[in-house]
Amino acid sequence: MGIDEDMERVTLDHGSGGLAARELVRRLFVARLDNPLLAPLEDSAVLPPIGGRLAFTTDSYVVDPLFFPGGDIGLLAVNGTVNDLAMRGARPLALSLGMILEEGLEMEILARVADSIAAAAERAGVPVVTGDTKVVPRGAADKMFINTSGVGVIADGVEISPRRLQGGDAVILSASMGDHGITVLAARAELGFSGTELKSDTAALHRMTAAVIARFPGAVHALRDPTRGGVATALCELAAAGGLELEIDEIAIPLRPPVRAAGELLGIDPFFLANEGSCIMVVEAADAADVVAELRRHPEGGQAAVIGRVKSGEPGRVVLHTAVGGRRRLRPLTGDPLPRIC
Amino acid sequence: MGIDEDMERVTLDHGSGGLAARELVRRLFVARLDNPLLAPLEDSAVLPPIGGRLAFTTDSYVVDPLFFPGGDIGLLAVNGTVNDLAMRGARPLALSLGMILEEGLEMEILARVADSIAAAAERAGVPVVTGDTKVVPRGAADKMFINTSGVGVIADGVEISPRRLQGGDAVILSASMGDHGITVLAARAELGFSGTELKSDTAALHRMTAAVIARFPGAVHALRDPTRGGVATALCELAAAGGLELEIDEIAIPLRPPVRAAGELLGIDPFFLANEGSCIMVVEAADAADVVAELRRHPEGGQAAVIGRVKSGEPGRVVLHTAVGGRRRLRPLTGDPLPRIC
Repeated sequence: MGIDEDMERVTLDHGSGGLAARELVRRLFVARLDNPLLAPLEDSAVLPPIGGRLAFTTDSYVVDPLFFPGGDIGLLAVNGTVNDLAMRGARPLALSLGMILEEGLEMEILARVADSIAAAAERAGVPVVTGDTKVVPRGAADKMFINTSGVGVIADGVEISPRRLQGGDAVILSASMGDHGITVLAARAELGFSGTELKSDTAALHRMTAAVIARFPGAVHALRDPTRGGVATALCELAAAGGLELEIDEIAIPLRPPVRAAGELLGIDPFFLANEGSCIMVVEAADAADVVAELRRHPEGGQAAVIGRVKSGEPGRVVLHTAVGGRRRLRPLTGDPLPRIC
Repeated sequence: MGIDEDMERVTLDHGSGGLAARELVRRLFVARLDNPLLAPLEDSAVLPPIGGRLAFTTDSYVVDPLFFPGGDIGLLAVNGTVNDLAMRGARPLALSLGMILEEGLEMEILARVADSIAAAAERAGVPVVTGDTKVVPRGAADKMFINTSGVGVIADGVEISPRRLQGGDAVILSASMGDHGITVLAARAELGFSGTELKSDTAALHRMTAAVIARFPGAVHALRDPTRGGVATALCELAAAGGLELEIDEIAIPLRPPVRAAGELLGIDPFFLANEGSCIMVVEAADAADVVAELRRHPEGGQAAVIGRVKSGEPGRVVLHTAVGGRRRLRPLTGDPLPRIC
């Protein structure tokens, strides 16, 4: 890692706004996130004028454990915020990075997370241009929390919003359901559950969504990533915001057998499990098959499928046609059996 | 507060991404922060095209205690991020709000902070347009941490940066030094120190800086708000980034007697105390007196004064001419005697 022995652990000095803080930021972050917008370390980053509407989003990440199969808190923090921009049809331009660190955190863990953030930002092509680091005394936080905010540009003519839902639209899910949520749960030692086939689906989706939006102008009405609350909650939110009913076919929903099995074992409905690499896409019915084909060209969309349709009916209602031929209403998550999932 | 008895305290459900979370956000935040950009609660807020360069900044707030004379964590979170935009000469357009809450936090405390955020955003004329709330289990965080990020627009022709420092420039401080830092320290019960005359200086400075920039086109070379690390650290950073030397006259620095007294009592040099409502302004010497006069027209700039000048000399060096006729070098803060000051 190339850091001094005196930097084995995070100390309160590292959050002081003084020399130690600057040194930490330079060694841990600037070196890895190297880009001309970040380098001046001024109070704000300055980006060139953008030709379109501005998308702006924020998310904090408090996942426990910090590392899990398929990802870690840093990867989530980059991909999650990139995806929040992508869900409005925006091209992500830049991210901010706000770290809250617990005094005593091993510097090696921080460096691993910083590596992960840098790699994810590089892969997504979205630079981290501004940041902030705070350190709180031992016991005042659990290891590390990360906030990423993001800015993006929405091209003229792109209008992605649940308000555009229409009766007859097709509902597409771009990836199998529940992988992230079940993986983080399995990774928590206290569950005594080992799931070697389980892996978070965390991925940045902006290139895939941009390709679909560009190829089918106007046909993509709404996008939503089913993170906390899972597919059920995201579908309910879409139906409520769009003022229409959704009809979902359980049998069409991609769900990997190990996720299904682990969900059954733990008594958790995969419909409520968080996803970090999939999106729900509501598109014009006539284009649905072609959109699915386009999604499947992308690694993140390999399991994309039409899972249902929009109906005029009871606004906000989501009806599931179950695999065994029944019908049940999908409701949004009410409690939280799964704290600190992202 | 108009909230149900079942909402006396924050629960893990409130961070679930499900119904309880949505209810919390609606009652506590949307109702107070009411604005058309926030209302849709989609993955990103969408702002109209902006005519200029984009300024983007982030800051997390972890201050302890949450409430102190003159302010609270919510007020700091709004003003601090507005100021980070103002320090680049940007007009602040919008804020994001990322809350990390500890399970069990009294809802009344959260409501007070939400009130404060709403009032500060209203006063600053900068809406909160997007947000996120996470809840972590009891003991995994200390009550409440807030991240605010901000976007702003920099008008054509405005170029504020320490790289513009020139030998001969005047260095102005817009307000008395150390009020925020000493107040938060005094508010910490464990210090057994009561300071009734002490009050945080937290204030949004964007209107004042914009007025100066507009009235003296091109004359404002650099701005910096001396938050964590205090005036000493901010001056050193300016000198280092500008590659020039600064000469500061101690006697010219506005410092309120109770702050001086409390600093002496606690053995803390006011040069290292955090400020949340002042800025250092480096301007062309010929305009310095007029800039000070303009600053004094604003309530936040009532004590503005020229405190020194830029010299060609040793890049990064800051020399203080002390009140008793000596000279000493000002250094950036190295340790952190004051954790969780903002």
